[in-house]
Amino acid sequence: MKLYDDERIDYLISNEKIQIIQSPTIFSYSLDAVLLAYFTYVPINKGNILDLCTGNGVIPFLLSQKTKGQIVGLEIQSRLVNMARRSVLLNDLQERINIVEGDLKEEQPNLKQSNYEVVTCNPPYFTTPQKTEHNQNEFLTIARHEVCCTLEDVVKACKLYVKPGGKVSIVHRPERLVDMITLFRKYRIEPKRVQFVYSKMANEANTLLIEGIRDGKPGLKILPPLYIYNDDGTYTKKAREIIYGK
Amino acid sequence: MKLYDDERIDYLISNEKIQIIQSPTIFSYSLDAVLLAYFTYVPINKGNILDLCTGNGVIPFLLSQKTKGQIVGLEIQSRLVNMARRSVLLNDLQERINIVEGDLKEEQPNLKQSNYEVVTCNPPYFTTPQKTEHNQNEFLTIARHEVCCTLEDVVKACKLYVKPGGKVSIVHRPERLVDMITLFRKYRIEPKRVQFVYSKMANEANTLLIEGIRDGKPGLKILPPLYIYNDDGTYTKKAREIIYGK
Repeated sequence: MKLYDDERIDYLISNEKIQIIQSPTIFSYSLDAVLLAYFTYVPINKGNILDLCTGNGVIPFLLSQKTKGQIVGLEIQSRLVNMARRSVLLNDLQERINIVEGDLKEEQPNLKQSNYEVVTCNPPYFTTPQKTEHNQNEFLTIARHEVCCTLEDVVKACKLYVKPGGKVSIVHRPERLVDMITLFRKYRIEPKRVQFVYSKMANEANTLLIEGIRDGKPGLKILPPLYIYNDDGTYTKKAREIIYGK
Repeated sequence: MKLYDDERIDYLISNEKIQIIQSPTIFSYSLDAVLLAYFTYVPINKGNILDLCTGNGVIPFLLSQKTKGQIVGLEIQSRLVNMARRSVLLNDLQERINIVEGDLKEEQPNLKQSNYEVVTCNPPYFTTPQKTEHNQNEFLTIARHEVCCTLEDVVKACKLYVKPGGKVSIVHRPERLVDMITLFRKYRIEPKRVQFVYSKMANEANTLLIEGIRDGKPGLKILPPLYIYNDDGTYTKKAREIIYGK
């Protein structure tokens, strides 16, 4: 497999069967992607799944180990689309994972509306109105800051592609919970499951996992908290299970 | 102090200086009231505090130990107003706690609008549209079911009485978080702090504590979870501190 610039091939640490191309200066997956893949319920044997803001395809690769369904990843940056497609070939997953280049703000001719059982997204987190607050690196800026899409664009796109009764699963920062819930309701995605992730037990939550159902009935469950580190700085048993898959 | 029916005088277990009149068939305070009083920030030396749906006054009595400010409790049921007022006399707190009889859905001539630094409420939790689902006991039905007021009535009243920049602090069930956040935003009370209470570590959350600021800026913190019981069924250290005050 041809690698460009400072790209390298990593094993997806939660599943050593899968390899993924990434790069410290272009895109490397984060713990949040791993947490979202862990949190998301997918149909086991078949179904259509869409991952928005897919980056190097980390979430499709992780979900491919939980489902035999078809997974599409949508990504706006050509450089990342190319990286993700090479990883698909590297793992011989071209029958099950399709990476589409496109902007989620525009209707995508290659994506069928109201078609997906599950839509996932690990979107850019930072609103940062000031250009000076952006990352110097444009690849990372687009992946992390709301430059190309806002949270509302993301939720609107989730609504556009998910089936009625289908699930939308997003990871974000807890301080955006209020916006997230307001937008979910606006686009008729009813929040059903929320899990907060805490770095350590005594800290405030630093990650929000939320699942809604399009046109679902009200009734939210707050799952048990997920702790990443023990007080001594080692991973908790649960975090080890999620990250290393054992 | 005259007691009626099956009333008894209990010590507020978190603070043995305070006594409170309650009754198993009319009104007894719950752990949720104690949790709300613990969660709520009050000005220490002065200020005006309002507790809606005050019942037998448990929250004003608990808060009177955290603040030297003036506390008003509003209650719709005459029977409970009478009970709460006798507890005020019993504790010689008539200079600091005032119990007002009235319906929070109506403008109260005795309560000044946009006046209170803090408004608290432990409202009825259950929507229960069917009469058959109500408690046979009318006192308990009104205290627990949305018969006399809905969650929207509560949030609207909080907004009416709290100062701009003042705090609104409510305890409810986590499944109503979505409604709560939607209503807070509707009435321009910005959610700022949320804490979920879990009976045990492995369970879903069963209580929601939420604080918002009228006309506040967005930015929500999810506090560390609060666990009530250890796996062996004993109170956790934190629960003991909150309940027994030590």
